[in-house]
Amino acid sequence: MQWSVADQQFMQQALQLAQQGRFTTAPNPNVGAVVVKDQQVVGSGYHHQAGQPHAEVYALRQAGVLARGATCYVTLEPCSHYGRTGPCALALVDAGVSRVVVAMLDPNPLVAGKGIALLQNAGIDVQVGLYEQQARALNPGFLSRMERQRPWLKLKLACSLDGAIALANGESQWLTGPEARADVQVERAACHAILSTATTVLQDQARLSVRAEAAPITPLSDGSVRQPVRIILDRQLKLTGQELLFQSGGPIWLIHSNQHTAAELTSSAATDGQVRYLAVPEENGQLDLKALLALLAEQQINDLWVEAGARLASSLWQQQLVDELIVYQAPVLLGAGAQPLMQLARLSHLKDAPRWQWQQAQCLGPDVKLRACLQEP
Amino acid sequence: MQWSVADQQFMQQALQLAQQGRFTTAPNPNVGAVVVKDQQVVGSGYHHQAGQPHAEVYALRQAGVLARGATCYVTLEPCSHYGRTGPCALALVDAGVSRVVVAMLDPNPLVAGKGIALLQNAGIDVQVGLYEQQARALNPGFLSRMERQRPWLKLKLACSLDGAIALANGESQWLTGPEARADVQVERAACHAILSTATTVLQDQARLSVRAEAAPITPLSDGSVRQPVRIILDRQLKLTGQELLFQSGGPIWLIHSNQHTAAELTSSAATDGQVRYLAVPEENGQLDLKALLALLAEQQINDLWVEAGARLASSLWQQQLVDELIVYQAPVLLGAGAQPLMQLARLSHLKDAPRWQWQQAQCLGPDVKLRACLQEP
Repeated sequence: MQWSVADQQFMQQALQLAQQGRFTTAPNPNVGAVVVKDQQVVGSGYHHQAGQPHAEVYALRQAGVLARGATCYVTLEPCSHYGRTGPCALALVDAGVSRVVVAMLDPNPLVAGKGIALLQNAGIDVQVGLYEQQARALNPGFLSRMERQRPWLKLKLACSLDGAIALANGESQWLTGPEARADVQVERAACHAILSTATTVLQDQARLSVRAEAAPITPLSDGSVRQPVRIILDRQLKLTGQELLFQSGGPIWLIHSNQHTAAELTSSAATDGQVRYLAVPEENGQLDLKALLALLAEQQINDLWVEAGARLASSLWQQQLVDELIVYQAPVLLGAGAQPLMQLARLSHLKDAPRWQWQQAQCLGPDVKLRACLQEP
Repeated sequence: MQWSVADQQFMQQALQLAQQGRFTTAPNPNVGAVVVKDQQVVGSGYHHQAGQPHAEVYALRQAGVLARGATCYVTLEPCSHYGRTGPCALALVDAGVSRVVVAMLDPNPLVAGKGIALLQNAGIDVQVGLYEQQARALNPGFLSRMERQRPWLKLKLACSLDGAIALANGESQWLTGPEARADVQVERAACHAILSTATTVLQDQARLSVRAEAAPITPLSDGSVRQPVRIILDRQLKLTGQELLFQSGGPIWLIHSNQHTAAELTSSAATDGQVRYLAVPEENGQLDLKALLALLAEQQINDLWVEAGARLASSLWQQQLVDELIVYQAPVLLGAGAQPLMQLARLSHLKDAPRWQWQQAQCLGPDVKLRACLQEP
């Protein structure tokens, strides 16, 4: 399909709008929409947060009667089902638009082509696939949950040039500088949930909440910052509820092995509305991470930002559950005995290593931020 | 000093011109010059290679009679001495320019302010210091040799995310991809000399020459690529002259300990015009690296590109002789037993680590290229 320059330009505008929801839409996807009449933008919008109108509705409201006979550019197939809001496909029909350009189909089984069909049955000219790749990149987590039934997993590492995360004596504060640490806040805020371990919570007195003062993070409608769900692997229920973790931020899900009784659960940790317990089977004395990810997808978790120690990082890496690596690397050498970022088995041939590719590299103060994904096959 | 927008613009042009000599001028510095009359560029040039005219001469030739009353922008103080070419300061006087703007003084003791004085004595208006920092960045090697009596030392590392340079079994080809390896050719070509060891030459059958086919490397006037001087630490004279090293590329300097006799030297390695022997004292059974760098500066070596194993890298790092780190990092984890990029003593406190700063980060195919320098105090 050949797209006109105008089509490309308006869809890019819709993609940029969609991005503005990245701190707030979870568990919903980021979506942007632009309504164009006679080559003029007459309405535009993006989805801001769950329970509020979808992107198309904002754009149509702004367009008003000008929507009649207009073209709507939308980054995701308009929905066809009654959720917390009415179906957007119907809103487009009612507004009288004559053409809809869609970047990608919605893999949500509740939609999945039904939105397109609804539009076409109403006689609207529908075209699909403009900037599909860019539209997919808006929502790796939502797509992963829908298509793979597991969240998109980002592993965060903060390490030295020689691949260490702490000195031999355990000292690790601060390996990276304030710029890198501020960026971590932004990355946390853009993720639906944070995955960590009771060990990290106890050792580092970690809050794992978003401190948004200095970072460019869009707030929710009520002015607060959306706090990611903090998912803590606590197989043996070591957390008492007295840790700093429980004194700030949003929901906490404690993941234990399914050998615990209800009595144990009520007696441990805090049990106010913020804390949930979720059970996962064990495998060789460890929590079964694949089962965990399936469970989290069922619970509508789109993406996970993993901030933990070398042990969880190694397990995720070895089980090939990491989708994206975010590395903050300090230009420092920690020398002999320093703690490695992972504990991995010996590799015998370079060609046996999984094929990753750095996608992005950026200086942050004295440090560098690197982002890698698996190479396309 | 407040500089006008026009001054800034013309000096930037001179800086860009200077850069064009970066593959060819060694041991001379990179210099660019622009002659401006009535806000129009009437002549411009840069120094191309030793023995050929300096930047100002090219610019003045192009300007011809228009140079009279013009302003000349030059990135380095015009020379005042008779070298292989006449003094540029005199050429500027003879051409009748009325103003000279100089980015930085020449630290070469043969010049060092004498060029400025010559101009001023002839009644020319001279101003110094516009874009001095950028002008210094053109010639870190030349400045290091003049100001510190040692070459600027760039340490090249190719490593994995976990800071390894080879698998436990020694396999290291190819850790990085073809894009990174092509970039190494460009970096080699821009350096005056390459420093390596007999061990690397023997183990990797290393040529350490510039293979310029696919890389954007400016040739010398005769169409050939300037080959860096290959300086090989061969304390015990292990190289025989039969290695691939001797079959290609430019000059080879073999550095041995000063306990060898003339008879030993003539019997080892190749002795055609390409090969020189230089003796350096030993220190604890190793070549004295500080003495080596002083010797190389005496021999007019501006900068060194170090491509060697972990042992030389560690020695240079521990003796704080590294000025710049260039790291090609592959998004791969080599796991247990992999060979570390350096063998360093245990660090006890993060605050004791030298303060480096990443200056540049760039994706190259699947890999990333990182550049770090010491932080300004």
